[in-house]
Amino acid sequence: MTVDELCYEIALANRMLDQEGVLDAFGHVSARHPTDPNRYLLSRSRAPGVVEASDILEYTLDSEPVSPPTVPLYSERVIHGEIYKARPDVMAVCHHHSPAFMPLVITGTDYVPVFHLGAIGGVKPPFWDQHDEFGDTNLLVAVPAEGASLARALGKHWMVLMNRHGVTVAGNSVRDCVFRCIYSHFNADYQVRAAAYGKVDPLTAGEAEKGFGISKGTTGQSRAWEYWTARLDSVGRLPAK
Amino acid sequence: MTVDELCYEIALANRMLDQEGVLDAFGHVSARHPTDPNRYLLSRSRAPGVVEASDILEYTLDSEPVSPPTVPLYSERVIHGEIYKARPDVMAVCHHHSPAFMPLVITGTDYVPVFHLGAIGGVKPPFWDQHDEFGDTNLLVAVPAEGASLARALGKHWMVLMNRHGVTVAGNSVRDCVFRCIYSHFNADYQVRAAAYGKVDPLTAGEAEKGFGISKGTTGQSRAWEYWTARLDSVGRLPAK
Amino acid sequence: MTVDELCYEIALANRMLDQEGVLDAFGHVSARHPTDPNRYLLSRSRAPGVVEASDILEYTLDSEPVSPPTVPLYSERVIHGEIYKARPDVMAVCHHHSPAFMPLVITGTDYVPVFHLGAIGGVKPPFWDQHDEFGDTNLLVAVPAEGASLARALGKHWMVLMNRHGVTVAGNSVRDCVFRCIYSHFNADYQVRAAAYGKVDPLTAGEAEKGFGISKGTTGQSRAWEYWTARLDSVGRLPAK
Amino acid sequence: MTVDELCYEIALANRMLDQEGVLDAFGHVSARHPTDPNRYLLSRSRAPGVVEASDILEYTLDSEPVSPPTVPLYSERVIHGEIYKARPDVMAVCHHHSPAFMPLVITGTDYVPVFHLGAIGGVKPPFWDQHDEFGDTNLLVAVPAEGASLARALGKHWMVLMNRHGVTVAGNSVRDCVFRCIYSHFNADYQVRAAAYGKVDPLTAGEAEKGFGISKGTTGQSRAWEYWTARLDSVGRLPAK
Repeated sequence: MTVDELCYEIALANRMLDQEGVLDAFGHVSARHPTDPNRYLLSRSRAPGVVEASDILEYTLDSEPVSPPTVPLYSERVIHGEIYKARPDVMAVCHHHSPAFMPLVITGTDYVPVFHLGAIGGVKPPFWDQHDEFGDTNLLVAVPAEGASLARALGKHWMVLMNRHGVTVAGNSVRDCVFRCIYSHFNADYQVRAAAYGKVDPLTAGEAEKGFGISKGTTGQSRAWEYWTARLDSVGRLPAK
Repeated sequence: MTVDELCYEIALANRMLDQEGVLDAFGHVSARHPTDPNRYLLSRSRAPGVVEASDILEYTLDSEPVSPPTVPLYSERVIHGEIYKARPDVMAVCHHHSPAFMPLVITGTDYVPVFHLGAIGGVKPPFWDQHDEFGDTNLLVAVPAEGASLARALGKHWMVLMNRHGVTVAGNSVRDCVFRCIYSHFNADYQVRAAAYGKVDPLTAGEAEKGFGISKGTTGQSRAWEYWTARLDSVGRLPAK
Repeated sequence: MTVDELCYEIALANRMLDQEGVLDAFGHVSARHPTDPNRYLLSRSRAPGVVEASDILEYTLDSEPVSPPTVPLYSERVIHGEIYKARPDVMAVCHHHSPAFMPLVITGTDYVPVFHLGAIGGVKPPFWDQHDEFGDTNLLVAVPAEGASLARALGKHWMVLMNRHGVTVAGNSVRDCVFRCIYSHFNADYQVRAAAYGKVDPLTAGEAEKGFGISKGTTGQSRAWEYWTARLDSVGRLPAK
Repeated sequence: MTVDELCYEIALANRMLDQEGVLDAFGHVSARHPTDPNRYLLSRSRAPGVVEASDILEYTLDSEPVSPPTVPLYSERVIHGEIYKARPDVMAVCHHHSPAFMPLVITGTDYVPVFHLGAIGGVKPPFWDQHDEFGDTNLLVAVPAEGASLARALGKHWMVLMNRHGVTVAGNSVRDCVFRCIYSHFNADYQVRAAAYGKVDPLTAGEAEKGFGISKGTTGQSRAWEYWTARLDSVGRLPAK
């Protein structure tokens, strides 16, 4: 994939996650540079639902823009840089505040896979509280030390919950990251609503491990990508070509 | 109905169930072949909301494609084949993961008719847990033995809940199946939300039995079909003619 | 208002209540004939969201069509006829199964005004259970005796809840009826969600009585009518002129 | 900003808040006159979602129209006038009945910031009960004494909850007011749903104070404004130019 193709893919991913209710005016999706692993690609400061390929800028892993910026930048871009630094296998990152996840991150509750596709979020993703290390902040992950702390919490997992804030998700491609964001968002919604109804009977450890492999072993990821693209298209909201 | 007409009806049913929130990127609707009861019709692997009549393929009841496939197939097509094998009276099948049903299938709770049209889902549809017979799996119903087990659980009913996974619904026509899917989806939503509010007072056994007959005795099914078609049309999402 | 104008108003009301989530494939809105109080106007059997002015038929108060019908009729039209018979001051009737109301009618809970506009539903609307008088039925109100029983339960009120079924609402005009349907639907939603959160502190009796008068004393009803019409228009779903 | 530009901004704000689910057929947004601090600008009586710049009228701080009105006026305009009178630093006001807030105002529960952007609603906004001072009313804030009482309750805060009624929000600009309305609406939704799930762990006092400053210290407000405008535009609902 060329840089131009990847920039379009990032813009599409931003808009998809907005359309499907994972992102709103805030949050962002990035990808590692396709040829230089020490760089990543992320939009200028703009709501995900209106990001264009031409908004994507190149950053160093210290989250400094490679060219002097002429536009405002996301204050939380260190989330992306510090994860790319710590995890060479991660090729895409999304930071979001999905309404489905908020009851979990507000009550400090672990994410638990409750249906097969929910296993894509991980058997037991970690939970990070910015207050533990940094005390009272405005909760934005805005300086490198905060981003690095979050990346350490993520460890070898693919998703980390952030207390009183939101979620950060990684993927081995933009599509893998989007797929994980949307199906973990569904799982969080089901987990919360099921708990209001009765005693949750989650996946067994074995089911969760096998379920985690679903996106690799099936054609599900590309099926979903075609679908989410079609939904954006049907409301006239695809990025400009 | 010719094969071509039925393929269009299947595509329409897939899109309707997507539009009404029963299906998302996953799930599928099939119909038994109109002239050969040992065959069934089902889309290639594609999200239901974008299925076209031209995507529909013909399968044996062992869920093998009649023509060598040039496209990926649904991994869970055995659900359809095994039910058609076990139940000659079933002419259409839908497998879905409706968000309304998830609190039930995650907490292992029976479906209970709580309003007249909810009776269409059956007085007490069975509950199947793949783990009972097959131990830890990724929960996909992907091999004939799993499909056959699910078909046995369905028995003579028209809907079966699947633990930590979703629901499978049968009908004596595509329209009957769609009608049952949507009104059981509403019933599940009401059942769950009512339980969060107070003590549910379900239909009496007699009311549930009489309510089950509503779709036969009234013009309701065709009224609903016209409506769901109009809703798809109003957002420009009817299948191609 | 001429009969033609009123038929258009009824079609518009049906579509509005569909668009605002009160009606779905089922339910219906009628009005008393503008010049003959012993007749009423109601659509042929059709989903409310697609009703046209040309679908409206004229019925006697015994719910017999004035002209021999060439199309299927609603099986529950006796709801309308029996209420017009019992209540000369009622000029419009809507029967619906609003999802917001279902937790109340499934748990047998009274409607309680919890915000000022909710008072429009009445201080304490009655609750009717078809089973009390008719035993096990399919819960459809399909014969005159059932409709008359419901009308007796309504009494001098403007809304009656129906156990395990839905709601019937009356108005002194089509617009009054629509206004009452939508704001009682909001109130039911708030009542249910508030109860899941904490102890509901409803309107005092005095506030509820004064609140009931809001639709008369303000320009609210016409403000809302313009808004709901604009919303239908913005999605291209106004009835044909 | 000229008066004409501000009138357009007010119409846009009304429509945005309707589109984002904070306003419905009722509620309103005003701004202080840009050159005469003793005047304010507010639409004639019209649903917010259809307000045009040409609907905006000029009022004195006693909420009298400056020109003799030829159209109906909002009965609750004293909310705006009395707040502008009491608070010279307030430049915009919105009165709304957001469904997310209703469980709080119906159960008499304080708003608590539960995520970083929710802090924009204030650390502990006051709660006003019209009944305390005025006894049984229809709960509309329709006379100057009621508006003045609400303004006293608001005090130096930027948001006040109104028992069994709704919310009133102030801002130092129209955009600031809209931003506060939407993110407090999200916070209320999260607060209510999280409480149904588990024990809410709100922001610390220090986090809430720092979080309150987010809209000043970042580019968030303009990012969100562009997004909400684009969403209105994508459904063809921008005000006329």
